[in-house]
Amino acid sequence: MLVIKRLDIEDARSLIAGARAKATEIGVPMCIAVVDESGQLIAFERMDGGKITSTIIAQDKAYTAAGAKRTTESYGTASLPGNPAYGINSAIGGRLMVVGGGLPVIVDGEVVGGIGLSSGTPAQDVECAQAGIDYFQASRN
Amino acid sequence: MLVIKRLDIEDARSLIAGARAKATEIGVPMCIAVVDESGQLIAFERMDGGKITSTIIAQDKAYTAAGAKRTTESYGTASLPGNPAYGINSAIGGRLMVVGGGLPVIVDGEVVGGIGLSSGTPAQDVECAQAGIDYFQASRN
Amino acid sequence: MLVIKRLDIEDARSLIAGARAKATEIGVPMCIAVVDESGQLIAFERMDGGKITSTIIAQDKAYTAAGAKRTTESYGTASLPGNPAYGINSAIGGRLMVVGGGLPVIVDGEVVGGIGLSSGTPAQDVECAQAGIDYFQASRN
Amino acid sequence: MLVIKRLDIEDARSLIAGARAKATEIGVPMCIAVVDESGQLIAFERMDGGKITSTIIAQDKAYTAAGAKRTTESYGTASLPGNPAYGINSAIGGRLMVVGGGLPVIVDGEVVGGIGLSSGTPAQDVECAQAGIDYFQASRN
Repeated sequence: MLVIKRLDIEDARSLIAGARAKATEIGVPMCIAVVDESGQLIAFERMDGGKITSTIIAQDKAYTAAGAKRTTESYGTASLPGNPAYGINSAIGGRLMVVGGGLPVIVDGEVVGGIGLSSGTPAQDVECAQAGIDYFQASRN
Repeated sequence: MLVIKRLDIEDARSLIAGARAKATEIGVPMCIAVVDESGQLIAFERMDGGKITSTIIAQDKAYTAAGAKRTTESYGTASLPGNPAYGINSAIGGRLMVVGGGLPVIVDGEVVGGIGLSSGTPAQDVECAQAGIDYFQASRN
Repeated sequence: MLVIKRLDIEDARSLIAGARAKATEIGVPMCIAVVDESGQLIAFERMDGGKITSTIIAQDKAYTAAGAKRTTESYGTASLPGNPAYGINSAIGGRLMVVGGGLPVIVDGEVVGGIGLSSGTPAQDVECAQAGIDYFQASRN
Repeated sequence: MLVIKRLDIEDARSLIAGARAKATEIGVPMCIAVVDESGQLIAFERMDGGKITSTIIAQDKAYTAAGAKRTTESYGTASLPGNPAYGINSAIGGRLMVVGGGLPVIVDGEVVGGIGLSSGTPAQDVECAQAGIDYFQASRN
């Protein structure tokens, strides 16, 4: 039997709050998704003005980061033409995201969930996803 | 040009808060989804213990209620064998839900969104969805 | 943070061994799927002669049982015309199975995974799924 | 509550008329799709001789342009290998289009819908989509 640590709904709200605060600060309304360590949705918010296409993309970024235990951005490099993971972006019916904005959430060295942001540039998405994790980690101490 | 009224993120949070309070009261952890009038996700929460299958079903109930401008429960009767909408449950790749728990959110006679609950019995799902709407409507006055 | 119990690969092999022994005994080659508590596949075997369509159906039965924390057979009754869950069978893109053969695996009162069988009659599928659970539970003591 | 502007069916017909006139002029029978600001289809025409594959592609171009509030062509550049949105083309089950021919329709600074063309070269698709918007905008004055 395995014993798994997993984000609860309060953790998810904390991650969203931190990401939303940064999104507000930089003036980009975001779609924000938090999934558990199995990639299943725990919480989601589309800020007013967040993009319609991003409702799906944010969730898939979170799913990819939690499920593959790595940032979606890291897949962007790994999947460049000529690199070993080339073409991985269309895997799982297109759910595997290689664009930045999905980050695993790690506690005590274990992936306990994932956060995915979408609506800004990939750099903005990453910045806000990281802000969500920073806020969550700070609030745990 | 049309002018459309749509739930904003604060409205969505209010709907979720009302549904969650009722779910807590009856002791059934729920998946709760709120979509806009076009069926696109605005906000979602899976209470700790909400069912994995319900993460999708709650969203699809909300989508159906908003998109078709009727309760998912009403489709259950309309789609009984021999009735005119028989078989509609598998439409849209199975997203059209005919099980109770999806309600349109109506303001000034217009559908402005939908709420979908899943994890309890259909009757419990309906009860909590209605509680979300009641709370939202009360908080608007 | 939540702490979740989950079947490991040895548990999954044990479940499959028990189900396979019964399938051999009754002379029906089966597809046998074991998923974790989030419905994700841990192990799968298609006995020689198992049905092609059952490779999918067995997985979806296991997913449904684990994700919804109930037997797929119980959904068969609940979703009869006129019953509250009527029409649920096409939910989640048709993955939600209401045909017998999917059982949740429960340890210390918690759902830790699911097992799904397909290729026989539903009654045979249920019998073999239960045999898998019985074998697994006996081997834990 | 949000208030959203959205193309109506007359607007959609106007967009199609403008695009069709240009397609006729250049001698390329087109598939022409118009969606609302949420990416939902309002009107569609396949000119005699339009490509079968383009019935889907035109819709997905319009969906992408409206939902992401940018031209599909701009995604083509942004998603080149080494650029930040590399790999985005397979998102949303492959619906996110990065090939030219999808344009957002903007009125008073707001995205009110999208138009998508397919069957010609991407340059021809863009030309006809733009002609649709030009005709629509001119007819509004």
